[in-house]
This record gives sequence, structure tokens and C-alpha cells, in this order.
Amino acid sequence: MKHLLLAAAAASLAFPVTAQEPTPIPSPGEIAAAAPASDWIAIAASDLLVMDLAPDAQGKARRVVIQLMPAPFAQGWIGNIRKLAAAHWWDGTSVNRVQDNYVAQWGDATEKKALPKGLVPVPEGDYVVSRAGAAGWDAARAMRRSAPIIADPYASSQALWGWPVGRGNNGELWPVHCYGTVGVGRNLSPDTGSGAELYAVIGHAPRHLDRNIAVVGRVISGIEHLSSLPRGTGALGFYEDDKERVPIASIRLADTLPAAAQPKFEYLSTESDSFARYADARANRRDPFFIKPAGGADICNIPVPVRSIAAK
Amino acid sequence: MKHLLLAAAAASLAFPVTAQEPTPIPSPGEIAAAAPASDWIAIAASDLLVMDLAPDAQGKARRVVIQLMPAPFAQGWIGNIRKLAAAHWWDGTSVNRVQDNYVAQWGDATEKKALPKGLVPVPEGDYVVSRAGAAGWDAARAMRRSAPIIADPYASSQALWGWPVGRGNNGELWPVHCYGTVGVGRNLSPDTGSGAELYAVIGHAPRHLDRNIAVVGRVISGIEHLSSLPRGTGALGFYEDDKERVPIASIRLADTLPAAAQPKFEYLSTESDSFARYADARANRRDPFFIKPAGGADICNIPVPVRSIAAK
Repeated sequence: MKHLLLAAAAASLAFPVTAQEPTPIPSPGEIAAAAPASDWIAIAASDLLVMDLAPDAQGKARRVVIQLMPAPFAQGWIGNIRKLAAAHWWDGTSVNRVQDNYVAQWGDATEKKALPKGLVPVPEGDYVVSRAGAAGWDAARAMRRSAPIIADPYASSQALWGWPVGRGNNGELWPVHCYGTVGVGRNLSPDTGSGAELYAVIGHAPRHLDRNIAVVGRVISGIEHLSSLPRGTGALGFYEDDKERVPIASIRLADTLPAAAQPKFEYLSTESDSFARYADARANRRDPFFIKPAGGADICNIPVPVRSIAAK
Repeated sequence: MKHLLLAAAAASLAFPVTAQEPTPIPSPGEIAAAAPASDWIAIAASDLLVMDLAPDAQGKARRVVIQLMPAPFAQGWIGNIRKLAAAHWWDGTSVNRVQDNYVAQWGDATEKKALPKGLVPVPEGDYVVSRAGAAGWDAARAMRRSAPIIADPYASSQALWGWPVGRGNNGELWPVHCYGTVGVGRNLSPDTGSGAELYAVIGHAPRHLDRNIAVVGRVISGIEHLSSLPRGTGALGFYEDDKERVPIASIRLADTLPAAAQPKFEYLSTESDSFARYADARANRRDPFFIKPAGGADICNIPVPVRSIAAK
């Protein structure tokens, strides 16, 4: 039965993306898991958006946790998102669109719900930030960049401050679209969206959206509650029947939840030596399954490790 | 309500991946749709693998159609797959593993079902083919390459003969892993898998698997029946409870189905001028939604257009 995965061995032999046990040459997951505690950075509860969908058909809870981007990126839209969450605006809205290999999108399907006061329009120029401004925001950490700079067909890119970031020759930086990225739906330019209509990427990285639409965060837990939803059969994956929409029970900032109910996560510092070794191992897989290291990896195939602190 | 997608307009304004109506500057989808009939190549029924899953909870049929790779790629495994289909070997097996942002995998979960006679082991060397051999297979079409050669962190790549193909400096060619790619599960090297255990990619392109595992085809219809399945909660996304497995009613080569029941598809010739313009438009989106063309696209973000002939 040499040509079949053996049932007992399958977990360690099939595709060792998640390390199951130590191997002679550590896998990327093993490198991250072995990183010292000082290389992990806690994510503030005020930067976590907690979306509870209605329970599934079997009554199981469906929680999606989104990490919002830090300054200097996208803070105009994120300010709006904080106001929308504080106003409980999304409660009772729904996931209205699920397009295969693209996005799941949520918001007010009726398009009639009044927005809370105080939302601000954000200019298109804020799709990017200047490198000078970014360095000013955290000059010390900017000096300790350890992640590789990757040239790909779209741009140069690098993992910076915990996020995959594009780098322009003109000194601009911008967040890039990868699997799990959360962005802001918008109308035609010059509209940039308010933040009330959000999407999460559930397919191959749609990098052509970079610099064309606001990226505000990423799903760090529960993406399967979006990616496994039935695909919409209407144009662009919109649900054709209202009954297909997936109700959103609530969306809250984690710091407004009772302390005991606040999810806690941390990410591996992209400025750490551990991350540099992790990124190298993603680009050159040497764990036992592989016979031919690729010699490189695209920015979205080097996802920044994030883990639940409770699960440590 | 400027900051919300308008319901009536959403289909054409949100993310115009699929063209809804002609625009002043054609979208990639419009370019493909406008290609002359002579640029489309019919896929032989003998190269289509038709997988019927058991109906879903609502009783709806779930058909997945896979196009097998043409010579000179992966023909050893594909020969085995043809024998497995002819023996109705997969009937009564199941989808056993669904790992988010990675693969859905199917085969015999019991690992006890005897394989049909006549399957051949295939050497690891067949993960790649020599360019000389490939040109000999179809020298005329190889001379009319019109798709761009793309340098990415993994390798050079190009759409050739209807498929995304990696190009080595040493004259080697190999199929690359993109969303929807179908490959052969295997055990540790030197095992290469028989073809009885197959997977389809349901996430960001796992290009690190290129040249490490056999690519035998791609899902051209019904990928949503795999990508929207519940994720397995066991290691590597294996279903922990047997009842979670998704039964496979049958897998057949289309040419063994009654003529009226045979699905018919065609793909846009990657050697056509239409494809060159389509690829350019994918890399430089100029349709109205976009304000900043990327200037490039990775090979998996230029999917070869495939359409149902019946739907024309």
C-alpha cells in the first residue's frame, strides 16, 4: 500500500504545514513555536474586532476575530469602524456576498440603515503612507527589519511591524491583500468606502486590489466561518435569496467585552531573528516531506504567525 | 449613502471580476468573451474527470469537473487515474480532509481498499519534463507562445498550452500549483503516490509544492462543492468523525458517460493574441473600478479562461 497515505501516519506525512512533532530539520511552524516569548507581541484588545455570526444549522457558535491594522495604515477607515462597532451598527446585518476564490462581504444588505454620526470620508491618498511618516511612527523598530525584501510581479514587499507591506520606489508603503485580509468595499472612485461594508479574502491573494481599496485588517481566527459559507449564485457571488444571507449577531471591539470574554492573541515579531528564520524556512522547505526547496516564497505565502495566548 | 455599495449597482461596481456589461476599457473577462471562436480549444471528453459527490443536505447535486493535464505532463499518474476511474474505484470513497486555505483531499479513508491491477509507480523525475521533449510534443504551438514570461519568487513561469507552467534555467518545465489545481497525495519520498489519493487546492497558491508532488489537472467546474465544505478539525484538516466525510457517488471519465450527459468545455488558447491581451489586462486593470494598475500579476492571478460550451 505504498502509494496511499497510511491513515495512522497521515497527520505527519501528508503535508506538514502544521508541525506535529520535532523533525531533524525544523519546519516553519516548529521555528515559530520555538521562538522565545520575547519575540511574541501581544495584540491590544482595542485592536481586535469580534464578529459573532448567528449559530450554524447545528447550533454551533461562529466567531470571527479580526486584527485591525496599526498606525500609520488606514487609520481613517479604522476610526470609522470603531464608531460603527461602538454604535452596534452591524448587529442584525449580514454576510451578503460569498464569491469563490475571492471574498466574503458583509454589511447592510438593505442599503437603508442610517450610518452613525461622525464617520469621516477618507481620501484615496490614504491607500498608501509615506515611508518617512511610517519610520517616524516607529523609527526604532523600522531600523531592525529582519524579514526579506521580496520582488514579485506586483512590487517589492516585506513583512513589517507584523504585516505584509508593499514598498514603492517612491518611498510609499501600503498593506497588501493576502488570504484573510479584510478591506473596505467601495463604490467607483473617488469614493473610498466608509468602512460599513467590509470583505475578507477567501482565495488566492487578489494583489491587483492593492492601492485600489483600503486594507484595514486581517482575520486571525475563525476564517473558516466565512470561507466555508455557500457561494452566492448571483453576479459577483451575491446571495440571490434573502434567506441565504448569514445573520451577524454582533460586531464588537474586544475591549468593550467583559474582561473574561476578551480573546487574547499575539503575533511573532517580524523584526525578530525568529521571524527571519521562519521566513527562510517558508521559502526553502527542508522538512522531510520536501525534496526540492522552492528557493523563494511570495509575501502571502509567508503568513505572519499569530496564536491564541490561551492556547499556549 | 455614497459610502455604501448600492444594491442595484453592486453587481457592476463592487469588484468587476466578471464583466457584466461592456465598459469603455474592456475588463479581462470582456476580452476573453470577445475572443473569436477560433481562439477557443475544445477539451476532449477523455480528458475530463467527472466527480459526483453525494447530494448536499438540501438534496442538491454536487458535480466537480476536473480537466486532466495533457502530454507531456504527468502522464504516468494520469494513466493510473484513468484505470482507477475505469474500475469505478473511487465510488463509495469520500472527501476526508478539508484544510482551510490549503486543500480538499479525497480517496479511501479506510486505506484498505485494494487498488486495481495495472497501476504503475512513477518516478520523481516525472514531476518535471524537459523542454526539448515538450517542444517535440507540440513544436508548432510552442513556437507561437504569446503569454508573458513572469519572474516571481519561485521561478519563471508562463501560460503554455492552456496551463500555468514553471520554466527552469536548465530547460525543465513543470506544472505549478494554483487555486483549483489537482494533485496526487503521496507518502514520504521516494513515494510519488499512485493517483488514488487526490487533492484540490482551495486557497492561496501553495507554490512550495511545485516539483515536490505530481500535478495532474485542475477543477474547471464545481470547485465550490469542495471549497465550501466544512473544514476538518483534526490535524491537517482531516475529519475527526467518520460521519463528517463527504461520500463520493462516482468518478468517471466523461467519455464513458452517455453522449448527452457528457460535459463540454473549452479553454482560451494561451498561444492566441486574445490571451496575450487578456493577460495584459489582468496585470494592468484599466476597467472603471481601478485607479492604480498593478503593472504585473503572478501566474495564478492570470487564470486560463475556461467555459462551458453549452453556456455559450
